[in-house]
Amino acid sequence: MNLLIISCGGTINKLYNELTGELEIGESVAQNIYSLARSNLAVRELSIIGKDSLDMTDEDRALLAHSVKDSAEENIIILHGTDTMDKSAAVMPKDKKVVFVGSMKPYSIEKDEAIFNFACAIGFLRSNPVSGVYISMHSLVLPHDKIYKDRELGVFKPLK
Amino acid sequence: MNLLIISCGGTINKLYNELTGELEIGESVAQNIYSLARSNLAVRELSIIGKDSLDMTDEDRALLAHSVKDSAEENIIILHGTDTMDKSAAVMPKDKKVVFVGSMKPYSIEKDEAIFNFACAIGFLRSNPVSGVYISMHSLVLPHDKIYKDRELGVFKPLK
Amino acid sequence: MNLLIISCGGTINKLYNELTGELEIGESVAQNIYSLARSNLAVRELSIIGKDSLDMTDEDRALLAHSVKDSAEENIIILHGTDTMDKSAAVMPKDKKVVFVGSMKPYSIEKDEAIFNFACAIGFLRSNPVSGVYISMHSLVLPHDKIYKDRELGVFKPLK
Amino acid sequence: MNLLIISCGGTINKLYNELTGELEIGESVAQNIYSLARSNLAVRELSIIGKDSLDMTDEDRALLAHSVKDSAEENIIILHGTDTMDKSAAVMPKDKKVVFVGSMKPYSIEKDEAIFNFACAIGFLRSNPVSGVYISMHSLVLPHDKIYKDRELGVFKPLK
Repeated sequence: MNLLIISCGGTINKLYNELTGELEIGESVAQNIYSLARSNLAVRELSIIGKDSLDMTDEDRALLAHSVKDSAEENIIILHGTDTMDKSAAVMPKDKKVVFVGSMKPYSIEKDEAIFNFACAIGFLRSNPVSGVYISMHSLVLPHDKIYKDRELGVFKPLK
Repeated sequence: MNLLIISCGGTINKLYNELTGELEIGESVAQNIYSLARSNLAVRELSIIGKDSLDMTDEDRALLAHSVKDSAEENIIILHGTDTMDKSAAVMPKDKKVVFVGSMKPYSIEKDEAIFNFACAIGFLRSNPVSGVYISMHSLVLPHDKIYKDRELGVFKPLK
Repeated sequence: MNLLIISCGGTINKLYNELTGELEIGESVAQNIYSLARSNLAVRELSIIGKDSLDMTDEDRALLAHSVKDSAEENIIILHGTDTMDKSAAVMPKDKKVVFVGSMKPYSIEKDEAIFNFACAIGFLRSNPVSGVYISMHSLVLPHDKIYKDRELGVFKPLK
Repeated sequence: MNLLIISCGGTINKLYNELTGELEIGESVAQNIYSLARSNLAVRELSIIGKDSLDMTDEDRALLAHSVKDSAEENIIILHGTDTMDKSAAVMPKDKKVVFVGSMKPYSIEKDEAIFNFACAIGFLRSNPVSGVYISMHSLVLPHDKIYKDRELGVFKPLK
């Protein structure tokens, strides 16, 4: 399975800057996670945008869609903030296997959830699903329009 | 998705006993991992056998097969030592969706790999695969007879 | 050794709030750390002020000094933000053994440094030092006016 | 403060070998811990013996005593298994400031206790104590003959 991982920033990639006391978008954490595949994944990585998903613009989403369209890989994981994941997912090309992954807590603070959400995406792609745009959060991997973020609970839930 | 998790022991469940200085089979770590699903999984848990997989007998495997056969759930994850995972997988009923999961390092020592392997199994089951017996290790989720453990490298690899 | 731990907030006690995406002052982390003493410490705990140290006022410092003065314990550790630790230290009573402890990174993000700075304070108090007001940071335990924070490096250094 | 750290092996330095499934003495963990001093320690390191402390012989102890005697440094921390720490301490030279440090759990499994015990030793040495041979365990830093290991509880306790 050839895999492209596009990192757009988001909470999953945030790091504590001890001089400012603020959390900032850091390098993509993808490699830390997929190294757990112990050599069974061929991965290409791309880092673009590098924003909180609340700050993403239509231009950013157009760039992301373009990167997906342009890629040689059929399997694509997108690291993305959880707040506007659904909005970005809605404008992606539908003819590849695209899975959005994020986390409620930064990998640098509590890596468990980020690993879990990411690895669910990998396991789902291993099943060779039909082309489409999916979201992998909190053990669900669903078409992007069948899942939503319950902002009060901080949990993604299936849409009935 | 209703899910049964059967824990048979294995490295994934080992804990350090500080009075003896030895690693021993502890409680199933499954709940620690699936709590990351944040309420999106209905799980029943069963702990049986509780051994290093090298010590498992034919009786143990018969008990495991029986537990799978008897379960009401269609989706079953089995926590199992990596050394004889293939041997146990070979004698499971084929009419459910059964995924074996283990790890090279105990969850209590380095939880990343255990979470990764487990979550790959969840993501795979979310795709609603055909019934069968699978192994989820190191980002691969394959029919049990299409994957093997490279004992020198400590990595599961696809069988050509 | 009877010990009072006063928590004033500060970076050491910050927690990630996943709903706001911000770091906030949480409960005192002292108990997580001193539980490593495995029963060899009698500890009383007091949580006051609960602020970033940059936001502490003269009233806050007066309250802190009062709490030190009023305590029955002779050994006192104060969890405090690193930015104005020196300012608070300067107004403490001098007739007890008072040690300020903080960390550059929150315990919840990287606990190592917080444990290290705290345990240095404990080891220092175990030597039964002369009364005074000390700062324990980055392996130094010095009278509060013999140590400063190098803000560029994010490291406490001895004053020559 | 010039500091020599002598690592003799012991539980604190054990690592999981995933191919054998056993815990083995690994490299000294001292550097991982003292890096938390953020440049405020001048450290020389020496690794000798590399055994479980139950396996240490009189020759090993003679070698350790010789290394202490020969060192230019006045402050010496010895990483040592907890089971015979007292026995080794009893034959050390008395004219330096020597502190034995160990942990009940390997640093590689649960680093908190190891960091705590080590940092207590540092804080104690910062007080410039009288020469002697000390043990730093579980928040106590006491002359080696005033402290013992309660083997049932797995905790060091002061001798009355």
